[in-house]
Amino acid sequence: MNNSPERIKRLVIVGVGLIGGSLASSLKKLHLVDEIIGVGRSEENLITAHKMGLLDLYLTDPNNIPSDADMVLISVPVAQTKLVFEAVARKVSKSAIITDVGSTKEDIISIAREALGDSFGRFVPAHPIAGGEKNGAIAASDDLFLDKNVVLTPVEGTSESAVNTVERMWQSVGANIVRLDASSHDVIFSAVSHLPHVVSFALVSMLAARSDSQQLFRFAASGFRDFSRIAGSSPEMWKDICQSNKDKVLSDISDFKNVLEKIEQMMRGGDFGSLLDMFQQASDARNKWAERK
Amino acid sequence: MNNSPERIKRLVIVGVGLIGGSLASSLKKLHLVDEIIGVGRSEENLITAHKMGLLDLYLTDPNNIPSDADMVLISVPVAQTKLVFEAVARKVSKSAIITDVGSTKEDIISIAREALGDSFGRFVPAHPIAGGEKNGAIAASDDLFLDKNVVLTPVEGTSESAVNTVERMWQSVGANIVRLDASSHDVIFSAVSHLPHVVSFALVSMLAARSDSQQLFRFAASGFRDFSRIAGSSPEMWKDICQSNKDKVLSDISDFKNVLEKIEQMMRGGDFGSLLDMFQQASDARNKWAERK
Repeated sequence: MNNSPERIKRLVIVGVGLIGGSLASSLKKLHLVDEIIGVGRSEENLITAHKMGLLDLYLTDPNNIPSDADMVLISVPVAQTKLVFEAVARKVSKSAIITDVGSTKEDIISIAREALGDSFGRFVPAHPIAGGEKNGAIAASDDLFLDKNVVLTPVEGTSESAVNTVERMWQSVGANIVRLDASSHDVIFSAVSHLPHVVSFALVSMLAARSDSQQLFRFAASGFRDFSRIAGSSPEMWKDICQSNKDKVLSDISDFKNVLEKIEQMMRGGDFGSLLDMFQQASDARNKWAERK
Repeated sequence: MNNSPERIKRLVIVGVGLIGGSLASSLKKLHLVDEIIGVGRSEENLITAHKMGLLDLYLTDPNNIPSDADMVLISVPVAQTKLVFEAVARKVSKSAIITDVGSTKEDIISIAREALGDSFGRFVPAHPIAGGEKNGAIAASDDLFLDKNVVLTPVEGTSESAVNTVERMWQSVGANIVRLDASSHDVIFSAVSHLPHVVSFALVSMLAARSDSQQLFRFAASGFRDFSRIAGSSPEMWKDICQSNKDKVLSDISDFKNVLEKIEQMMRGGDFGSLLDMFQQASDARNKWAERK
């Protein structure tokens, strides 16, 4: 765990957004990488990343990835993962380590297992818990991962030396490593991340669809600002996450509707003592959490 | 609207929390008040407010309010409003202006109409749109109302000169005045404030009640932090608001459950294109709103 980071000669980053760009920026700053090659759909974004000094080279077609990369980091929306994995499997040498940064893990592991074939053992499923509403390389920063958790979810068959290399890379940019099994990961993040995003998107979309929406937004204030911040996130990314972690997110939405129904029953029945108890439980839990962080 | 503020000789603030305390602090700083008398349940809080220079005098029993106050500002949880109004009606002279800062208006107006009797015409229903999760006089600041909206909801029978006096007081501490009818106010704030609070409390309470809650909170990150900030608010205040604006909040919870059901249908049916459209609508609306603010 405390080994010094290996120097990466050739790192390919497929998807140079906030996460991929920030990793590039952090590794460059620490001189832990010789060459970073960016791959992406938007040439404009790649040009920006190149100008920012995040990339040495860039290409728009994953089929042109060089075969001698030491590591390929895949940081694209889940829906594009399969095609990217297939291109990577065709191109890179048998020594290259492949890793990702996806917000869901079971689904990505199963895509990787199928698309990577023999290379699957060198795939290290990973999820850095960092982000924000800003997207694209332009939002990259060299301290995004400082003191953040990076969850690794290796499976049976994942090369331990590949896991160690990925672990050291993330540690070198300031992250704390946590290992979880993929299913636990998806359960946890459905509850603390996917559900809150769905709920925030749902509430803002409800207000936006109302005929009095202009007046509503006029009076929305700081409480709404915080609550709705995550509804400003990338719609594509979050649609993909809902698709990728569908069963667990559906189960949490269902549980959440039950809580809302309990609240309705308390309010209709005039049982505001129980409502107070529920609010108190939430407020205590939230404030305790915030103090620890 | 642009008249200079009247100097207040004797202001009584019943409930010296964040709002009452910040108004005291702002008026004191601008030398727009000769004497502020604080009234509250917690002597400890009143002592703090006195030490902070927000109050000249304080008392714990609203029945001891002096009869010669120019203005009485009522800033207590809705559930206590009736008793306070009754005490005020018994004590203060027929020239005193009475106003409040409650987050709901129809219910408070109906309580005031009953409890204030002849004095109801001098009651100006008001709602400063400012706040935070921190409570008590200790959280008071002299710039809380700068550029914030204060909604006034006078009814037929409210003295126009009383409205003007309250309006000038809030303008003098930097607020913008908006007049609305009480029902529109309650509809708007149910949607943009009460519903988001209920939803945030509900989600945090759901996670806190799970057997894996410790692990969930361990991995909760910045998205959860913003979303759940309002779940750290005063449980008592928000229970009161749900009670006071019950019908409109229930209607919004029901509409919101319908949106969640739509999302469930899209996800179960694999219609992720429609889910993307909904997320896009929310994201556009949220980002447009944030840019304007």
